[in-house]
Amino acid sequence: MKVIIAGHYITQFGELWSKSLIDLMREAIKGAIEDSGLTETDIEAVFVSNMGSGQNDNQLHLGALASQMISGYPAASRTEGACASGGLAMIAAEQALLSNQYQTVLVVGVEKMNDADSSLTTKYLAAAANYTTESGSTFPGLYAILANAHIKKFGTTRSQLSAVAKKNHHHGFDNSQAQYHKQLTIEQISNSSLVADPLRLLDCSPITDGAAAVVLTTKQLKEQKRKRASIIGRGHGQDSLDLANRRSLIELDATTKAAKQAYQMAGLTSGDIEVAEVHDCFTIAEILAIEDLGFFKKGEGGKATEEGQTTYGGKVVINPSGGLKASGHPVGATGVKQIAYLAKLLEEKKFTRALAHNVGGSGATAIVHILSS
Amino acid sequence: MKVIIAGHYITQFGELWSKSLIDLMREAIKGAIEDSGLTETDIEAVFVSNMGSGQNDNQLHLGALASQMISGYPAASRTEGACASGGLAMIAAEQALLSNQYQTVLVVGVEKMNDADSSLTTKYLAAAANYTTESGSTFPGLYAILANAHIKKFGTTRSQLSAVAKKNHHHGFDNSQAQYHKQLTIEQISNSSLVADPLRLLDCSPITDGAAAVVLTTKQLKEQKRKRASIIGRGHGQDSLDLANRRSLIELDATTKAAKQAYQMAGLTSGDIEVAEVHDCFTIAEILAIEDLGFFKKGEGGKATEEGQTTYGGKVVINPSGGLKASGHPVGATGVKQIAYLAKLLEEKKFTRALAHNVGGSGATAIVHILSS
Repeated sequence: MKVIIAGHYITQFGELWSKSLIDLMREAIKGAIEDSGLTETDIEAVFVSNMGSGQNDNQLHLGALASQMISGYPAASRTEGACASGGLAMIAAEQALLSNQYQTVLVVGVEKMNDADSSLTTKYLAAAANYTTESGSTFPGLYAILANAHIKKFGTTRSQLSAVAKKNHHHGFDNSQAQYHKQLTIEQISNSSLVADPLRLLDCSPITDGAAAVVLTTKQLKEQKRKRASIIGRGHGQDSLDLANRRSLIELDATTKAAKQAYQMAGLTSGDIEVAEVHDCFTIAEILAIEDLGFFKKGEGGKATEEGQTTYGGKVVINPSGGLKASGHPVGATGVKQIAYLAKLLEEKKFTRALAHNVGGSGATAIVHILSS
Repeated sequence: MKVIIAGHYITQFGELWSKSLIDLMREAIKGAIEDSGLTETDIEAVFVSNMGSGQNDNQLHLGALASQMISGYPAASRTEGACASGGLAMIAAEQALLSNQYQTVLVVGVEKMNDADSSLTTKYLAAAANYTTESGSTFPGLYAILANAHIKKFGTTRSQLSAVAKKNHHHGFDNSQAQYHKQLTIEQISNSSLVADPLRLLDCSPITDGAAAVVLTTKQLKEQKRKRASIIGRGHGQDSLDLANRRSLIELDATTKAAKQAYQMAGLTSGDIEVAEVHDCFTIAEILAIEDLGFFKKGEGGKATEEGQTTYGGKVVINPSGGLKASGHPVGATGVKQIAYLAKLLEEKKFTRALAHNVGGSGATAIVHILSS
């Protein structure tokens, strides 16, 4: 049974001081339903992705809040898995469809991060790690460990890390909804202030407010003017939360597991993918991702990026939206936005095969989706 | 396709000062797998139910934490829907099975509430309501509104409310894992201190630490010594978070919707149910539940309770575990514990048809499951 992306919508990403969690969620829900050409009463269930509204807004039960924005109070729930919440909510929605419980559902991801002071935000992002062993680390600190392992093993360079950020800011420049529209030079990135050696400020994705939604259906849609994208592969990999228990620090096993499942289900290999939104919470995360997803050999992701293989004209276009780095990373929205953004590119006939890759924590959870035009 | 409850486990419920969130989760996971006779590597996915670990423990990403307690890192996610988190995680797990993604999964519900001070707990329970309109209300305040509406319309009495608590403390007396083993008189309950008129302290479910887990499978199990229970009906109803927007204050539409779906799927009526665990977060909630589930006519739930129709020898045994009232209400665990407790009773051949009813917020979300021996 095919899951069709009937509609999609992404709000502006950024520091949205005049918009609340509820404003963003409502805008994305209404936008995706309108884009689908369906009506609110066609939506049988709503799946909400969010990480931190409990801590940030003292608001839980977001499923019920989303449900009351849609006529007829569809069945609702919220899925959380740190920064992979969006991918997990997508999986939950797809399984609900494939179980024949529903024929049309909506997934909305939302995060309102800028109302909290930065100490709270830092604290709540750390809630994605394991409090028994890693509570002293910040997220940049964990990814710095992964970066150092990669540098030591493969000689990945400062310029290669910067090339990831430069390329994503270049891509984001053309995405009107991206948080940043600023092109950066390698020098600016390489000389930005140190956060967790070797990661610098411009290696890191920002704190972002935003929401994204998709309408998924297994029904044949009447209106055929537009060729909608379908989900043809999905995978879900899991690994230890604690870096200390990982098999490897130069590879995210959760990603390789998820990718293998998704390629197998789609009947494709990495070579068939033309475009991908990958989880570049830090520049090193994109290098790991493009290797672990099979686009480049292990250890060659930095070099490939520097050589232009991950932008238009190269082997595979990585993060055309600007990725988490330039488009922004409203945590619960990210995994849904990746799918929404790719669905739009496929509908515009810019590509025919796309991949979305969403990671939670420092690699404990990974979700891969493959989309086809 | 039939979903079989292959294994189940409930931890002690109570003020468990020496146990952490992780201790409780691990005990329930290991216990349910052991009870199932399966091995850890049979578990393909784990679904975690929890409401407040973000606020209480600054710990999110509980799916990944649960996954690393099970060999082979099964796919994991967390579902949240306030006090209905457990029922929602069950639904997510069942849909994953019915979509043919997995054949054997584990659902674990956990809540560690007693480490937080009571002002934080009060605040985080309020996170289940809508912060735009109800942030001034506490949970007892919202249920007091429902109680007053029922009293006004049907003449439900103080003694009838107390009869619910008395009966549940009587049932809980025989449940060794219940939080309270204290029998109460009508007078003690009716004279306990006022919390939100007409609800008194002994009308309210307590703050509880605890966990519960079930192993669900669609596979035929080899070991046939024990006749395991199956899930034969499920329903999911949704309504406005805000009482002001409800159609009725004397009936929870979310419950009636969920019940209708569950009965229809099971091919049963309320008259076929012999035993039920219902969501008695307050005494009035049990009276609403037994009416909305169709066991008694609207307005007659209090009278039926007073007449002994909801205990052994009556029409239907309601809350044999002691319910939320006496067994305790570790929020994320409750919906899973209801299923685990009923599965045990069915295996013991005490009953053949059972119903579980789990509510989120003041009735915005309701989940009903029907189990058969």
